[in-house]
Amino acid sequence: MLFVTFEGPEGAGKTTAIMGVFDALIDRGIPAIITREPGSGSFGKKVRELLLDSGEINPRSELFLFLADRANHVDTIVRPALAAGKVVLCDRYADSTVVYQGYARGMDIDNLRALNEMATGGLSPQLTFLLDLAPEIGLARLTKKDRIDSESLEFHQMVRNGFLAEAKLEPKRWKVLDSTLPAEEIVENILEELLLQKILNSK
Amino acid sequence: MLFVTFEGPEGAGKTTAIMGVFDALIDRGIPAIITREPGSGSFGKKVRELLLDSGEINPRSELFLFLADRANHVDTIVRPALAAGKVVLCDRYADSTVVYQGYARGMDIDNLRALNEMATGGLSPQLTFLLDLAPEIGLARLTKKDRIDSESLEFHQMVRNGFLAEAKLEPKRWKVLDSTLPAEEIVENILEELLLQKILNSK
Repeated sequence: MLFVTFEGPEGAGKTTAIMGVFDALIDRGIPAIITREPGSGSFGKKVRELLLDSGEINPRSELFLFLADRANHVDTIVRPALAAGKVVLCDRYADSTVVYQGYARGMDIDNLRALNEMATGGLSPQLTFLLDLAPEIGLARLTKKDRIDSESLEFHQMVRNGFLAEAKLEPKRWKVLDSTLPAEEIVENILEELLLQKILNSK
Repeated sequence: MLFVTFEGPEGAGKTTAIMGVFDALIDRGIPAIITREPGSGSFGKKVRELLLDSGEINPRSELFLFLADRANHVDTIVRPALAAGKVVLCDRYADSTVVYQGYARGMDIDNLRALNEMATGGLSPQLTFLLDLAPEIGLARLTKKDRIDSESLEFHQMVRNGFLAEAKLEPKRWKVLDSTLPAEEIVENILEELLLQKILNSK
């Protein structure tokens, strides 16, 4: 019914925000699911393990694993939920590939968009919330770092710049939120946006 | 030093042929390695498990997993061995993707070639031996079938047609061998070809 994605660095509070929104939707009787990339479903979990714990992995292999996971995720989880009339709240999606592999790792961005198109079969979210955060704050919040979190501060700065650039390219779809705000306030902002989009009173 | 790939269906005797050629090279003091796709190295083994034992897997996910494995395999195994002056004997490579995903599963072949180019960084074999076999015979030879071997006879016929079509497109690189010949004869044919290519007396 409505496909909403959440983007931003680790440590920005995506999980907390998504859970807050999910609870609010369910309270109002609106069917919703929470999902994420990489690593939803049993296939996704195995891909996620490979991605995060494989030690050295070349950028092309990393990219193709994300795409394998995405194609599976779209087909087995996202599309069926949308077809069943649910709001899908997804933690990371195609934009993460454009930003991490493109803006931060220097791969060709047009090529990445084409690969995303292929992986998703053209399924794009109607709304994307960027939880924007300075990398210094995000990294300091994390207690346990995986392979990607352990990249340099410059890498994480490029990620932030990339997300902000993407948000400017498609301002109707992207809503940029200051993730240093209190969690309740962030959830309120998201719910207001869903109200504007006539999701909250569509029932 | 020389990159040689072996293509053809399961059951055609690729492994036996490769081992025979490997032994002959080593006997002549020519350094060589045997490798394969999918599933060389520790990363590749995990990808191979995902590919062969994941139950239902959509064609796009399958393709991207093969490409993830290929990119890793080329960087960590094939290129280093070639740089060290070795003959690389590889069981399946980029052509398998074009044939299985393109000819047999109907994905866009030009697109697959572009993805292979990206995954391999443009590394193509100098020689490719196709062990050609009628699918009825190949399947009957197999004792244990994985997910791909369990496809229909029509699928395997499309695979055979695809390999033969690719061989015709690049006759200098491809050498088609009748895999119903005795194993020793196949190995002799391959060694003769390597002689012609001045590999066997290059030392």
